[in-house]
Amino acid sequence: MTAMNPPPTLLNPLLDLGFSRVVDVPRALVWRAWTEPALLMPWFCPKPWSVVDAEIDLRPGGVFRTTMQSPEGQQFPNSGCFLEIVPGQKLVWTNALLPGFRPIAIAALPTADSSTVDFKFTASIELADAAISGSSQLGTRYTATVVHADAAGCQQHAAMGFEQGWGIALDQLVAMLKKGL
Amino acid sequence: MTAMNPPPTLLNPLLDLGFSRVVDVPRALVWRAWTEPALLMPWFCPKPWSVVDAEIDLRPGGVFRTTMQSPEGQQFPNSGCFLEIVPGQKLVWTNALLPGFRPIAIAALPTADSSTVDFKFTASIELADAAISGSSQLGTRYTATVVHADAAGCQQHAAMGFEQGWGIALDQLVAMLKKGL
Repeated sequence: MTAMNPPPTLLNPLLDLGFSRVVDVPRALVWRAWTEPALLMPWFCPKPWSVVDAEIDLRPGGVFRTTMQSPEGQQFPNSGCFLEIVPGQKLVWTNALLPGFRPIAIAALPTADSSTVDFKFTASIELADAAISGSSQLGTRYTATVVHADAAGCQQHAAMGFEQGWGIALDQLVAMLKKGL
Repeated sequence: MTAMNPPPTLLNPLLDLGFSRVVDVPRALVWRAWTEPALLMPWFCPKPWSVVDAEIDLRPGGVFRTTMQSPEGQQFPNSGCFLEIVPGQKLVWTNALLPGFRPIAIAALPTADSSTVDFKFTASIELADAAISGSSQLGTRYTATVVHADAAGCQQHAAMGFEQGWGIALDQLVAMLKKGL
């Protein structure tokens, strides 16, 4: 895993998490890996966890749903909706709104079970062309930013291993693309 | 106030509120009255309440902030962000996300004070050209839909007088436009 730098768009260090890396796979393929269920499922969750189901309706208010499965076979559904889509460049979604922009019920308060994601966040993936030294092909600057409602949610996300987890997932994405689709 | 019909896009009668009316003012002016602070403030709140401040950043994730003032002079700020903007046709915003799509803190639980809006909703205003009988000028079909997280929030909003309140505000909007900008 290469070194990560904090993204330039990080808004508030007490509330936000993020990283930025250059990867030597084309931007158009990274976009497909994020937006096509069959190409998202293989890499989205650090192994030995897996994604066993995914639904993507790529429009503002459209569903973004994944079901993660633990090595023991327990399943954890996550549902949210897309907020902003700039094809090939920017993808924003949240778990604070359900499909159709419906706010989630406030009853979803944090629990002691750290294996479920019970804090609310909005995540942004930004992609840009990037030169790769020693290569004539362009790679991708990959910037992930996650904004939280409060410091507690941000700290919980960090303690769950946000940066390592999303970094490993990105490594899995790159490995998948390098094998060829 | 003319009769209202439920909008066709009403998603769930237990969770959603809405109405649809035809008003004899042009769609382009209704759009301006919703998206320019100086044109929004005069009508947005049923009198004798008023809007004493408004901020509109008309892009996905941009701020939509108003400060309402009671007849006694008490001020109630409301802050949210825009989700979807189709100029002249559709405006969607929520109070479940702050500017930059940041989820609101869960600490904002409902209180006993019914004068504050503490439930979360996403509101959609849809505008379409509509024929006006006896007039050669087109009017506007105005459809408002508000989706809530749960039945309690929907009922609280209904009990606060959603339909009457938004209807009176629309009357005030139409009256302002008929006087000329």
